[in-house]
Amino acid sequence: MNEFELIERLTRRLPRNPSTLVGAGDDCAVLDLGDPEHVVLFKTDAVVEGIHFEKDTEPARVGHKALARCLSDIAAMAGTPGHALVTLALPSDFRLPHLEALYAGMTALAAQHGVAIVGGETTANPERLLISVAMLGRARRNQCPLRSAAKPGDAIFVTGELGGSRAGKHLDFEPRLAEARWLVGHFPIHAMIDLSDGLAGDLRHVLKASSVGAEVRAGSIPISRAARLAARKGSRAKLPLAAALTDGEDYELLFTVPAPQAVALLDAWQPAYPDLKLTCVGKITPAAGLKVRDAHGSRPLNLDGYVHFQKP
Amino acid sequence: MNEFELIERLTRRLPRNPSTLVGAGDDCAVLDLGDPEHVVLFKTDAVVEGIHFEKDTEPARVGHKALARCLSDIAAMAGTPGHALVTLALPSDFRLPHLEALYAGMTALAAQHGVAIVGGETTANPERLLISVAMLGRARRNQCPLRSAAKPGDAIFVTGELGGSRAGKHLDFEPRLAEARWLVGHFPIHAMIDLSDGLAGDLRHVLKASSVGAEVRAGSIPISRAARLAARKGSRAKLPLAAALTDGEDYELLFTVPAPQAVALLDAWQPAYPDLKLTCVGKITPAAGLKVRDAHGSRPLNLDGYVHFQKP
Repeated sequence: MNEFELIERLTRRLPRNPSTLVGAGDDCAVLDLGDPEHVVLFKTDAVVEGIHFEKDTEPARVGHKALARCLSDIAAMAGTPGHALVTLALPSDFRLPHLEALYAGMTALAAQHGVAIVGGETTANPERLLISVAMLGRARRNQCPLRSAAKPGDAIFVTGELGGSRAGKHLDFEPRLAEARWLVGHFPIHAMIDLSDGLAGDLRHVLKASSVGAEVRAGSIPISRAARLAARKGSRAKLPLAAALTDGEDYELLFTVPAPQAVALLDAWQPAYPDLKLTCVGKITPAAGLKVRDAHGSRPLNLDGYVHFQKP
Repeated sequence: MNEFELIERLTRRLPRNPSTLVGAGDDCAVLDLGDPEHVVLFKTDAVVEGIHFEKDTEPARVGHKALARCLSDIAAMAGTPGHALVTLALPSDFRLPHLEALYAGMTALAAQHGVAIVGGETTANPERLLISVAMLGRARRNQCPLRSAAKPGDAIFVTGELGGSRAGKHLDFEPRLAEARWLVGHFPIHAMIDLSDGLAGDLRHVLKASSVGAEVRAGSIPISRAARLAARKGSRAKLPLAAALTDGEDYELLFTVPAPQAVALLDAWQPAYPDLKLTCVGKITPAAGLKVRDAHGSRPLNLDGYVHFQKP
């Protein structure tokens, strides 16, 4: 059973209430808390030593990553982040300067995005550091793109370049908050998700939630330099294309938009974000399944996205 | 450095923003998210195997406790809980039936209080189970009693009986949500806090936040049967009074109200909550410090509240 199957099993019969617009299963929960113009976005995310970072990773980068992951989920809903709570579960050998540097990395990013850190707690977790961030944000009503909104005929876009994030980007990435709000402000964005599990894995989440399929063009996938470099490092490395599809932790945006808007979107994007690539990687299809098209034709994609853990 | 000193050090210069009404340092953060009649309460709390529960604790009780601790903090703000996110950090040897039972304990309590569990995540924490709950609630504007609102001349009250919680109550307690809302709805409650660190420890939080002192009457402290039983178990046990003052994890309410209201409050409480004791344990004083009065006079209380961990 992998992470997604486990969550599906545990969250099958959760209590809901009328102010819950979107519960488990999207990048954030979406709540109606009485603001007539906005919905509230609610998200938590944890990073764990030895899994999401190493014991010797610079603590400021760990703090940056811990907060940035939540911000990336707010971005996937085209939201504006507002408030965060930080839980530090501390190993027995924690050192105060390490924690202060971690907090400095987190607060620098928070300040940059106008996020208030409004509390949190410390507890013990003797063997390893764990940081859990809870985040609140808001989005304009009806401008909050869900995973379930992809339609046949949509073009599929991704920002940035994919794969090889473990070489460093997974610690230093910038959440695509402004870009996401620009997108929903200017184009009829259907579905949106942030790429944490790899293009293949996250696109599958969209397809499942939307009850559609997709075909991606192998030659269009924007492969990062880090993925190409990693592929040269010996026989056990992934091919660059596989890395771009499955490495995970890209923290870019994947979204769909009606295909007739695709060219206008690319035209408008370039002057707005000249330093960030935007690529159309394929299209949404009525038939279920995820296919890849290359010079040899179209075939089902068997590579899985990054899955955080497996229990035998 | 203990937990409180560490938090104070880390949270000294946190980024804030204008919608933050109360940041770090109270039972919940208090936010203005645009509802003209209500403020939003935001809280996280984590429980860790080997610290807050044992490996062999019945999982339904662990789930109950994990959620109830957050609910108790919402109660301390006289709030109504609304939405929760659940982070499960799973040991390598986790078993699905165990997690399902844990979720059952949590969802039963959530349903009882109208709380929607709107998502969460799982991650790995190889050596031990950790459960972090993030909670949103709301409270009426100007009916949200802060720790900083105690005034000289206030009477200090506690609900229930204190001490000995480790015998079982720490797993099965009922958060005092309805009671807290009843209190602020009927009486001019000044400060309120939930008792997680022991009467002595939590009252000190109130005194510090309010820049006042207090005198408690030793003979008035409501000592639980569990604390009395534990005291009989040999020479290393605490005296019952010390247990009631310092054991922690009582999850009762401590609050202050102007002394002239004290008798009317006790009169009104009895028919409203006939099964829950309410006790006036002392008074707020202008002079700083926490004193205990007994047959021998009044002296400073040297016993500390329960402190979650100490780093030498």
